[in-house]
Amino acid sequence: MSIFGATGSVGQSTLDLIRRDRDAYEIVALTANSDLDSLAALARETGAKVAVIGQERLYGALKEALAGSGVEAAAGEQALVDVAGAGADWTMAAIVGCAGLRPTMAALKAGGTVALANKESLVSAGGLMMAAAGVSGTTLLPVDSEHNAIFQCLAGSRLEDVARITLTASGGPFRTRSRAEMANITPAQAVAHPNWSMGAKISVDSATMMNKGLELIEAAHLFPVGLDRIEILVHPQSVIHSMVEYRDRSTLAQLGSPDMRIPIAHALAWPQRIATPCLPLDLARIGRLDFEAPDEVRFPALRLTREAAAAGGAVPAILNAANEVAVAAFLGGAIGFLDIAMIVEEVLTRYSAPMPTTIDDVLAADAGARAMAGDVMERLTV
Amino acid sequence: MSIFGATGSVGQSTLDLIRRDRDAYEIVALTANSDLDSLAALARETGAKVAVIGQERLYGALKEALAGSGVEAAAGEQALVDVAGAGADWTMAAIVGCAGLRPTMAALKAGGTVALANKESLVSAGGLMMAAAGVSGTTLLPVDSEHNAIFQCLAGSRLEDVARITLTASGGPFRTRSRAEMANITPAQAVAHPNWSMGAKISVDSATMMNKGLELIEAAHLFPVGLDRIEILVHPQSVIHSMVEYRDRSTLAQLGSPDMRIPIAHALAWPQRIATPCLPLDLARIGRLDFEAPDEVRFPALRLTREAAAAGGAVPAILNAANEVAVAAFLGGAIGFLDIAMIVEEVLTRYSAPMPTTIDDVLAADAGARAMAGDVMERLTV
Repeated sequence: MSIFGATGSVGQSTLDLIRRDRDAYEIVALTANSDLDSLAALARETGAKVAVIGQERLYGALKEALAGSGVEAAAGEQALVDVAGAGADWTMAAIVGCAGLRPTMAALKAGGTVALANKESLVSAGGLMMAAAGVSGTTLLPVDSEHNAIFQCLAGSRLEDVARITLTASGGPFRTRSRAEMANITPAQAVAHPNWSMGAKISVDSATMMNKGLELIEAAHLFPVGLDRIEILVHPQSVIHSMVEYRDRSTLAQLGSPDMRIPIAHALAWPQRIATPCLPLDLARIGRLDFEAPDEVRFPALRLTREAAAAGGAVPAILNAANEVAVAAFLGGAIGFLDIAMIVEEVLTRYSAPMPTTIDDVLAADAGARAMAGDVMERLTV
Repeated sequence: MSIFGATGSVGQSTLDLIRRDRDAYEIVALTANSDLDSLAALARETGAKVAVIGQERLYGALKEALAGSGVEAAAGEQALVDVAGAGADWTMAAIVGCAGLRPTMAALKAGGTVALANKESLVSAGGLMMAAAGVSGTTLLPVDSEHNAIFQCLAGSRLEDVARITLTASGGPFRTRSRAEMANITPAQAVAHPNWSMGAKISVDSATMMNKGLELIEAAHLFPVGLDRIEILVHPQSVIHSMVEYRDRSTLAQLGSPDMRIPIAHALAWPQRIATPCLPLDLARIGRLDFEAPDEVRFPALRLTREAAAAGGAVPAILNAANEVAVAAFLGGAIGFLDIAMIVEEVLTRYSAPMPTTIDDVLAADAGARAMAGDVMERLTV
């Protein structure tokens, strides 16, 4: 097996599970973007065949750090792609951001099983990725808790038997706020997520519900039942991770503690199961689960993402890039909370790109959208 | 296909689904206990090959009612067994009570798929029934909403991967009552179930939570993961019908509207799905789901049934028979609500029977327990 993004949160959780049954796994490759010391330590610990650092300039340092370990050192984007393309029985694709596109595509083309945790792969390049997996016969297992939940609820069922897929959403920290109240939200308020501890960018995406909208785009690629059959339901406790309703009106839901090791363990052991040290679900202690319809007026990201999913082509990549720029600007104090969706909508109106047929096309649309987002913000802040 | 108990609630729901795609099914046999007119009408409507009335004395009347229809008439317990033993690709075993034991056993021995709705088959004769199904290779699909939910949540998984099965329980109409308040409950109060509309006997079983305890016994036979891995969780809204937690701590739950046609449709179409006219699940409208631990002190039936499941042999059959006698006495005004569990416990203490190896043994234990329950009540009411 190989782990792309081994030093990140998903990579670390994957290695935590592997350590509990060390002899059951053989590590081919571990990769990291720039965390040289952690990568070298993990490669030594696991006896990986090769360690790849994304930043090419760190090659010498990595080679030095691995001296005498027997682990081969490599660096740079092409090395990531080459190692992914060499294939493994099981690959964790957990590089963060658009840097994950090329290695993930290479892994999907190589066959075997790919556990997918890189969001951009499906949001920005979903059509290309699903097509590549289809051609190579790669088994694609979603690791994101919502999509992993849907995968489990489907359990080999035929998609034509599905009446509806429901993505649950915590609603974020501002679930009950009015638009007027949202105008003054600070970055510090936005990064305090109620249920999961996570990074600043994804916390803001949760607060705008852009995160759930991006998951809608991902779900539409992974589970092609038709966009009108995928809906979002606000569920503040985040105990039900998602649901599938069949045409007989039987609904299956997947539930669990908010611990990423649960979906990772599912992907690691599928179609069997392995034990994890995660907490059992204690619904009697939790006591109650609440549900409410999402509000696309207060959370325009839900509308924008659904429109982008329906438009297809380069539109989701443009939306994703514009959102990244806008969120960074919000976190830097340059724009307000409500400006995020406004900027995304403005970029979607002003910028378009042809239907991507390669990852290069996707990256070009991404870059163009970022530039346009910069222009839009400049006008806004003048 | 054949439907045993065609005129009862489960039989009618099954026929309702079949009518919506009439050409997809061929009816071999329909049976009823005594509702001659309904049976004859259904047999004519569906073009069944044979109609069997349980009450032997009604043979002549049935033959007359079917005259000219081309449907063969039969009557009596042996006819039920013979028709069940002749086999069908798919059999609904929905006869109510111990009268269902012999025909269900014959169907399980005949092979094919048996949709099981006769509770006594698993409560009183679970060991024998499961062994018969195992030998013949019969596919046993549980129709009871809780067990059907568990079956769906398992979806072909290995039982060794299951950490815990959770049977949900509405808690009945007296979920929040103290023992002192329960002492004065009337039959009219006990039969008013909050979520499902059902008969008087099963409503009282829901009120005492004996029903859930009997389901525990059934679940232990259907899903042999060990009794300590099957628990009961009170969930007043009855939206989640049951759950399975895997050893990775991922939990799958099945949810739906309180409509028996949903689990019946599942059993009818399995491993595929058919559309039903049942209501989609609207969690935003339902708004909230509550959960609490069950209370074995206020609901001693939970303790008694778990003990009976652990003891095995004839004990569950004795418990079930004693409960039937006690509930009938309660409905007739002869004993109080709290006396039901007390009488069951007393019968379990005073009466025992050898490990059953045939349905006759089960029926003998059942009869013995009924007699003992009569004795116990006589002493109580003197």
